[in-house]
Order: sequence, then structure tokens, then C-alpha cells
Amino acid sequence: MGGNDPASGGTAAADDLLCRRRRALAASYRLFYDEPVHLVRGDGCWLFDADGERYLDAYNNVAVVGHARAEVVDAMYAQAARLNTHTRYLSEPVVEYAERLLAHFPAHLAQAIFTCTGSEANDLACRIATSWTGRAGFIVTKNAYHGTTTATAALSPSLHADTPASVRTVAAPNPREEGAEAAGRFAADVTAAAERLHADGVGFAGLIVDTILSSEGVWAEPRGLLAPAADAAHAAGGLVIADEVQAGFGRLGDGMWGFARHDLRPDLVTLGKPMGNGHPISGVIGRRDVFDAFGSRERYFNTFGGNPVSAAVGLAVLDVIERDGLVAHAGATGAHMRAELTDLASRHPGIGDVRGSGLFLAVELADPETGAPASERTARVVNEMRRERVLISATGPSGNVLKIRPPLVFDAEQSVLLSRALDDALTATEA
Amino acid sequence: MGGNDPASGGTAAADDLLCRRRRALAASYRLFYDEPVHLVRGDGCWLFDADGERYLDAYNNVAVVGHARAEVVDAMYAQAARLNTHTRYLSEPVVEYAERLLAHFPAHLAQAIFTCTGSEANDLACRIATSWTGRAGFIVTKNAYHGTTTATAALSPSLHADTPASVRTVAAPNPREEGAEAAGRFAADVTAAAERLHADGVGFAGLIVDTILSSEGVWAEPRGLLAPAADAAHAAGGLVIADEVQAGFGRLGDGMWGFARHDLRPDLVTLGKPMGNGHPISGVIGRRDVFDAFGSRERYFNTFGGNPVSAAVGLAVLDVIERDGLVAHAGATGAHMRAELTDLASRHPGIGDVRGSGLFLAVELADPETGAPASERTARVVNEMRRERVLISATGPSGNVLKIRPPLVFDAEQSVLLSRALDDALTATEA
Repeated sequence: MGGNDPASGGTAAADDLLCRRRRALAASYRLFYDEPVHLVRGDGCWLFDADGERYLDAYNNVAVVGHARAEVVDAMYAQAARLNTHTRYLSEPVVEYAERLLAHFPAHLAQAIFTCTGSEANDLACRIATSWTGRAGFIVTKNAYHGTTTATAALSPSLHADTPASVRTVAAPNPREEGAEAAGRFAADVTAAAERLHADGVGFAGLIVDTILSSEGVWAEPRGLLAPAADAAHAAGGLVIADEVQAGFGRLGDGMWGFARHDLRPDLVTLGKPMGNGHPISGVIGRRDVFDAFGSRERYFNTFGGNPVSAAVGLAVLDVIERDGLVAHAGATGAHMRAELTDLASRHPGIGDVRGSGLFLAVELADPETGAPASERTARVVNEMRRERVLISATGPSGNVLKIRPPLVFDAEQSVLLSRALDDALTATEA
Repeated sequence: MGGNDPASGGTAAADDLLCRRRRALAASYRLFYDEPVHLVRGDGCWLFDADGERYLDAYNNVAVVGHARAEVVDAMYAQAARLNTHTRYLSEPVVEYAERLLAHFPAHLAQAIFTCTGSEANDLACRIATSWTGRAGFIVTKNAYHGTTTATAALSPSLHADTPASVRTVAAPNPREEGAEAAGRFAADVTAAAERLHADGVGFAGLIVDTILSSEGVWAEPRGLLAPAADAAHAAGGLVIADEVQAGFGRLGDGMWGFARHDLRPDLVTLGKPMGNGHPISGVIGRRDVFDAFGSRERYFNTFGGNPVSAAVGLAVLDVIERDGLVAHAGATGAHMRAELTDLASRHPGIGDVRGSGLFLAVELADPETGAPASERTARVVNEMRRERVLISATGPSGNVLKIRPPLVFDAEQSVLLSRALDDALTATEA
């Protein structure tokens, strides 16, 4: 996928844009695909390039209620034309949005703080956990990704090799290899890592875990998988931070949040990506006593966090999710899609596993003989799919897991298009 | 000002909203004023409360081109109705915006990375400086504020007392007390602090400085004030990060950036607050070689940073600033306002100093007898101004500096209203 500075976008216009982009934007900016896609318009699950070609978006969870969704765009416009300001003045939208959002959480998660990106939400959650426990050590999974700030990049071993002394990594549960032992082994590792943090004098502040384990290769089953580790973290005196930036807002098809699938009782929950359908909004939902202590010890103010426009956008997204029954829709469409992918697996021996939940599905590619991760083929499949004008990506420690994570308005017909394109891409990459 | 949970917003409706707000939002949320303002609408430099009362906004720099500015709201709508996505696909708006923005910078600051908040921009700039130098130590001024992430809060001694070993604080230049020695003394302190960081084994990565020294009490004069310290930082092997989150985008009335006033040659410049007129957008502008090195060593991707809607908004703000000549306007209106404030000072002995640049002005209140900071009176003046329906705030290590920082479209007539209200507030708080 990624591609360091691909050579060409195809047309002269795309070449020119690519050249200007390389000049003006820092080297950190990378493009998907060997041949980048130059997008100009979106509509529902469809994206259109500069030549008017249509792409099926089976990857972008951010546009949760569909690209350019009218209700969201209109709500943003109406509020922006009226007032945008910060939370040091009283205003209705942030309060209304917080109330509406909190209604989707268990009672012990009673209050909200709004931020602008998933990184900011995770960074703040860790500041709060450090303040609450008086300790600085965190436990993350070995290939975790939790953000791009200094503190959250340190909690993201998937970004780089060196992890500071205040961060301990544990192998994510892998039910495929470990079977029924996965949850217990993961919990035992959390206990041991917390003990090491205490012994090192760093102390254990919390366990932060992506409830769909996305960068670990997407692990959703069995239900309850993460509960013993959360219990272990609590027993060791730390907080449990459920990172719902990827799993949240109904994607898993059986409720709004991934932590509920696993019967977790998190102390803090972080939200991001789909929250504003592309508008920069994120947040931390948590226990009132934990927030009270943080508020009395530290000053925190985020100029843009919870501004009336962001709140109106968040509210419009929530309205659509509720009114259109998108959680149940994700469950039904996801089940449909999973059946198709499982059928593909019966015909393509290169598919080692199909897993996930709702509209967060994963197709693991492995060598049919040896079972070794088919990382290089996975990249070719993603690029082949792009040529067939279906957008997906890859994940996992070995990059051999196709990540399928479309807007929640994806329908059964689009699911058929996706499976057919994948069928073709698998055939094309068989040699 | 702030007020921890004031008792009442006046009306029953405001009381009810306040009560709901306390229930749903974390304790960190604080309101301005003894009696909070409940805002529902904005227009230019005017804000309106729920009862239709009108307030003159002489404080909110974020709404740089005026509240609910039509060109900005329309540009946001047009792009959001078309496409919002991330930078892993090619798209025009982020490239065009970067080019247009970079045209306002000296040639050695050649590339951009977009983020969503000023905190994210400063956090990233520090990651980049650490990566470039291979060292982790930063120098900030004693009462600096650079953000709310874990890393930038550590660089913000104005937020709390304990600063980690990797952060050294130096007294900000205070030309009022130090006279012509201020710049040289500040530079000498930077050299000494860098030496201590090197000696401690932490190493010196960079000097980060707010070019208007806002939280230090607003220090704009003399021009060149910060240049010797920047030279000292470079001589000690560190990078210079100019924090333009508050000073940038023409506010100082004589150019787009505060660093240019002081003939600084920063390696990285951070932008925020006014960049999107309230839309969450921020960025880092920097040297290509520094960005290249970071890009080759670290992975950085910000899902919302530089999305097409944010870019369209940033572009619309820049358009208005350029087309309406708001930099020159800020210079002219600021000079007018400063003359009025200086006139006030001749009649109110409690005014110890009037200073600043363009439309970032400061009025320092001191005991006329002892010269001691009149912190308590300053809070009373801010609340009295609110009762007169003019919004300002206070800053400085002792909280005795009135901060006047209106949208740049503030005009001469509004400046007269502001001075009259301040005249009255000073009279009302004389006893």
C-alpha cells in the first residue's frame, strides 16, 4: 500500500499535483497505493476521482454515515453561520451533545471532555490516569497504535522499535494461535508487566487497549476476550482506558462500543475518527470521581474542543446513527459480507482466516503450504483492488491482514461488489 | 476571571444550562466571569446572548476575520458538501493551501505539516526537534504556555509548578524592568540553560518561544528582543521553534508573523488559533532538511490534519486577510486603540503600562503607590467590563495585565467603545 512517493498518479494533472504536493508538504506525507488516487468528490460509500471514475469505499471508517452526508454538512453550516466559540462561555450545543452521547454509556461513565483528534483524546486519558494514580507507567499491546503526540507515539510500538521505560508491551491475545488460553494468558502478562512497572519504580498507571485490536490484526472474538486483562489491570491498581477511536460508534454491529462486547468496565473511554464524520472532534468519557480529581489538580482547556460547530456536527452524526439504525445495519450487512468472504476462503486457499465483527472485517492472507504471512501478496491485493476501484487497506504486525472498514451505510449490493473485486484480486495475485 | 463554577448565569434558563453543564462536562471545564455569558450568536466583532443582549468582543483572536464570517462558512460548506477525506489520497485543497501559506514565509521555511490544534502543532514541533538533534531538552520562559498534551503541558510552567528535568525555564525578557539589558540577559540565560541541559546528559533540543510572550504579560518591544536568544539557542546546537499560535496571522499589525518583528530565523514555526477562524486547524512550517530527516526516521500521520475541508477553511481565512488588508488594518486600528489606552493611563494612575503591537494590546494594572501588581483589581475590571458588555481577559504571571485581542476586523468606533468601557470600569474599581 503505502508507497514512498509513488512515481505517478497516471494523468499529467495528477503528476503535476503530486509534484506540487512533494514540494509544499513535508516528507512525512505518504500516499496509499502504487498509483495514488486523486479524489475530488464523495457521496455515500462512493468516491470519485478527477476523471470522474467511481471508487467503492470499503476502508474509510471516518465517514461513518457516508461521504458528504447532507444532514451533517447542513448542521455544520447552520451552526457555523450562527456561532463558533469556546467553552469558557456558556453555550447549549456542547452540553446537549455531551448529554446525548453519555446516554449511550453505562452510568459509571458519567462525564465528557471534548478534544479534536484521537491522539489528543488518548494523550489526555493518559494524563488523567497518571494524575489519578500518581504513577506514570502504561501497558499496551506489542503492535499497538494509540496516536501521534509525543506521549501517544510512545504508547504506539507499531510506529517504532524503541519504547521508553514507562511503557511495557504485552503480546495481544491471538485466539487463533492460543485458542481458549488467549484471554487468560493476556491477563497474566498484564499482571506481570504491572508488577515490573511497580518494581522499576515507575509504577503502573493504566492499561490502554484498542477494543478491536486493529493494528494487531483485528481480533473481535470470543466476547469477553479483554475482560480478564482489565480485571488484572484493576487488581494491580491501574485504570483501564478503552480506546474506541477505531471500534466505536456502532462499527462492530452489536452495540455502540467495543468495550461492551467484552464486558469491560473501563474507567476512561476515548473516542475519535468517526465521531464527526470527518470533522476534527474526539473526546474522553469517564468516571466523575476521576475527572473531579484531575480537575482539582491540573488545569486543562482545549480552545477548539467542544466548540459549538463541532458539537453540532457530533450531534448530527449521532442523530443519523440512531435514526437510521446503523448499529443493527452494520451487524446485518457485516454478517452478509462475512458470509461472502468465508465463501471466498473456501475457494482461495491463500485466505488463512476471516474474522472481525460488524463492518470491521479482516481477511488474513497466508501461504497455503507453510501458513507464513503473505505480506507481499497482501500489498499486491490492495493495489489490485484499487485498480478494480475498490478501496481497502492492510494491517497487522506482518501487514498480511486485509482491513475492510467501510462507512456504516454500506449495503448488501456494495458488499457483493467488494467480494467480487476481492475474488478477482486474489485470482490475479495467485502466481 | 475564571471563576470556579459561578453560582448563576442570571436567568432561570442560564441556571438550568449551567446545572446541566456541570452534570455532563468534567470539572476541568471552567467559565469566564463571576456571571457567565450565555452566547447564542456572533456577527463580526459582536456576540449576542440568549436574551438578545449584544457584547463587543475585544478578546477572541480565534475569530480573526470576524464571527460567522460568510466567506469562511460558505467555503467550509462547499467543500464539506463535496469531499472530506485524509491526505493518504491525492487532493487539491491541502496542496493549494500549503502553497498559499508558504508564500507568506521566508524561503528557508519551505514545507508544511497540518495538525488540528496549537497543542498538536507544538507537540509535533518538539518531536521533530528531538528527532533532528537526538536530544530531549527544551528551554521555555518561566510562565510559558505551549499546550495541553502531556509533552506541551510539561513545556507550560504557567499550568503547574513542577517542570520535568528535560525542561529548563528562563525568565522572559522584561524590557520594562530590565531596559536595554533584557534581550542580552535573556540570551545569556538561554546559553546557561542549554549548558545545564548538556551537562545533565539530557542534551539541548531547542528553544520554544511565543513571539508575543502572551502568558508572560505581552512583550512586543523593542523589535529584535528575541533575536539574541535565538542566536544563543542555535550556537548551543538547538533548534528555534517560534510559537505563532497567538501572535500569528497579522495580529501584530506589521507583518504576518511575530518572529519577523524580531528578525528571528526560526527552524520551525507553529500556527494555530486564528488559522481556521474557529475551525480546528493548526500546523508546523519548517525547514525541508529538518522535515526530511524526521520523515525518514519517524512515521507521522494525522487523520484529520490537512483534510480538504480544513484546508478550504484555512484558504478562505487567508483570502480575507489578504484581500481586506487586515494586517495593515490591525496596525492602524491598533495604533488608534493604543493612543486611547495611553490617554486613559494619563487619567488613571492605576494603569502602570500600556504595551503590545497591532491588535494584541496589554494594559498592566499596578498599585499607584507601591507599583505592586493589582491582580485582584484586574479581575474586577474584567468582570466590570463584562457587565458593560465588552469582553476582554487578563494574563501575566500575576494576572494583572488586561489582555485585549479582538478579531482583526475591529474598527475605530469599536475601539472608542472599548476605551470608554475601560474608563468606566477603572473608575468603578477605584476604591
